Amino acid sequence: MGTTRETIGIIGAGQLARMLIEAATPLDLDIRLLAASPDDGAARIWPRTSIGSPDDPAAVTAFAADCDVITFDHELVPESVLIALEASGKRIAPSTNTLRVAQNKQRQRELFAQHRLPQPRHRIVRTVHGAEQAAEAIEYPVIVKAAYGGYDGRGVWRCTDEATLVEVVSGLAERSIPIVVEAEVRIERELAVMVARDHVGRTTVLPTVETVQIDGICRQITYRADCHVPEAVRIAEIVANVVDLTGVMAVELFESDGQLLINEIATRPHNSGHYSIEALASSQFEHHLRSVLGIAPGSIEPRAPFAVSVNVLGPDDGSDPRDRIGLLASGDVHIHMYGKGARSGRKLGHVTVLGDDLDLCIERAWAATELLTNEPRPEGM
Amino acid sequence: MGTTRETIGIIGAGQLARMLIEAATPLDLDIRLLAASPDDGAARIWPRTSIGSPDDPAAVTAFAADCDVITFDHELVPESVLIALEASGKRIAPSTNTLRVAQNKQRQRELFAQHRLPQPRHRIVRTVHGAEQAAEAIEYPVIVKAAYGGYDGRGVWRCTDEATLVEVVSGLAERSIPIVVEAEVRIERELAVMVARDHVGRTTVLPTVETVQIDGICRQITYRADCHVPEAVRIAEIVANVVDLTGVMAVELFESDGQLLINEIATRPHNSGHYSIEALASSQFEHHLRSVLGIAPGSIEPRAPFAVSVNVLGPDDGSDPRDRIGLLASGDVHIHMYGKGARSGRKLGHVTVLGDDLDLCIERAWAATELLTNEPRPEGM
Repeated sequence: MGTTRETIGIIGAGQLARMLIEAATPLDLDIRLLAASPDDGAARIWPRTSIGSPDDPAAVTAFAADCDVITFDHELVPESVLIALEASGKRIAPSTNTLRVAQNKQRQRELFAQHRLPQPRHRIVRTVHGAEQAAEAIEYPVIVKAAYGGYDGRGVWRCTDEATLVEVVSGLAERSIPIVVEAEVRIERELAVMVARDHVGRTTVLPTVETVQIDGICRQITYRADCHVPEAVRIAEIVANVVDLTGVMAVELFESDGQLLINEIATRPHNSGHYSIEALASSQFEHHLRSVLGIAPGSIEPRAPFAVSVNVLGPDDGSDPRDRIGLLASGDVHIHMYGKGARSGRKLGHVTVLGDDLDLCIERAWAATELLTNEPRPEGM
Repeated sequence: MGTTRETIGIIGAGQLARMLIEAATPLDLDIRLLAASPDDGAARIWPRTSIGSPDDPAAVTAFAADCDVITFDHELVPESVLIALEASGKRIAPSTNTLRVAQNKQRQRELFAQHRLPQPRHRIVRTVHGAEQAAEAIEYPVIVKAAYGGYDGRGVWRCTDEATLVEVVSGLAERSIPIVVEAEVRIERELAVMVARDHVGRTTVLPTVETVQIDGICRQITYRADCHVPEAVRIAEIVANVVDLTGVMAVELFESDGQLLINEIATRPHNSGHYSIEALASSQFEHHLRSVLGIAPGSIEPRAPFAVSVNVLGPDDGSDPRDRIGLLASGDVHIHMYGKGARSGRKLGHVTVLGDDLDLCIERAWAATELLTNEPRPEGM
């Protein structure tokens, strides 16, 4: 059994760190934050913040010295920092080995194959020629992914023919980045499931939600309290075990021809879990903190039959959605702004609406987002 | 219509300021805090904190210079500070006149009488002789209250005979503090209702809750989503108007012989409203911030049929409840610790349990409190 009096060090100070801090405050947890800048979203709301680069092994080592356990705003932690953290002898949650898997799409695919988990047909290649052969075998169009370095749709390309493929993979091959060539699956729905697991293996699977991505960026998350997807739970539990998770993790899934396939994982709180702040008794952030500390797990008791979260992206006109919060006609649209400067297309926040009627939740969440961004919703939403 | 981009200055840094900040963070409101000490509960969680005495006019004036609107952790603001704030020309919410009423039980009784609001029979006196005559007329036992200076049961005495009365009122009369002598009413239940009102008079009345006090300290709050008490709503609306409220206010009521009587008011977020953090779409803290800014009001949409909050008081053995948070078997007991050092009898935090079964909520909230404090619940709870 862990204790709530340990010092948790959070490396990185984006919105996930910010919402971790929001969840830690009512429990009066002892949080320290390492931020690249005092203007980072989480640094703006937390006094015990050290300024230093989360990518600098020396800064991270100095920061870790005052902490009992270290966790992260995101999983893209450089290898040099992972080595420095291992040398520090501190508890790391998730572990450095878990992070090495999480930041490498090649290792994920290999590990999932080893455990016979469902995923798209794929090949791992290192050369342009290898990619050409893989694409021929899999059949165009194919999805090409850099083994590491991408997020929010970056590092992922759809190639319809050999010319496009060669252009995409040449750069990766030159930089010796392994390449995952995957079949483009017919996606009926994209699902996501959060799972929390502590260092002794106690596991809690949060409800399965449906996500909508546009250009690789998550725009809408739909939660149904009565949505039980046993196969998603099974996959989440196995993945959490095989990556030896401590903390929370998102497993993103494609539903294709009635089957679930693992798209990718993220070993941290995740955009697809933001609905949980209001819709579950314990948010994904509280689940993460509880798992990291090894204290009693959080609860997934529902707070409403339905919840819809919509991301608030920076409007093209450069205006700031925070200037329009006061206009929102009702407080029961839950607004979460991340303390970031407005820039076109940047994730600045999200809104969540709970309710008894799913269509109404969707309508109200988008209406609020339109009002905040002063932009119409994307087509089809 | 106000804006969410104004700087809100909070004077005082106890748990109410702390929970105001927790509510302000998701909205990314610009909060500054004036704390007597960096160890104050709210100062421990907020970077933009100035250290200075909330009772010192010079410190408050310097602090207010950087703010657009000023609000408070509690209503016991010295007259010298109120005068300094008025001179600063800043917006004050609630207004200095509202605070002058809120901190004076004599003025409250006179104002309520003027507006024919129901309250216990009482007389205002200034001398020992006057108190004796009042008590004779009202009949013993009587409740004696200092017009100002008390909270959490301090400044209130029950006098069963003239000897006790003389002892109590002599000190007040010597210090020229007006004395309220009230009839002891037979209390069937104690109720409380929060009301939010902005500077243009838009008013939202939160649900009526039942509170249980022991030795003048609130121990348990019970919320029923289906509890509608029209008379409580009527009283709350009138009181908010007659004190010209901006922000939230608690009206504490006695139910006596089937009638509601005003016990007292507090023009700020209040212990009896803590249930609202989880049980309503907008917490009392969000309602306060929205009213102070004059933006769209919050929502009172219920999140569960029942909610029970129980205060976590410092245990007699001097132990710290934070050391036992990790033991709580389930995360769906919502824990709120205030960042205060453990001292016997001190309000250190509260827990809230939501549910479909009121008795079960009560049982679980007290079981959690027993575990956190390592003490049995008080008799009768």
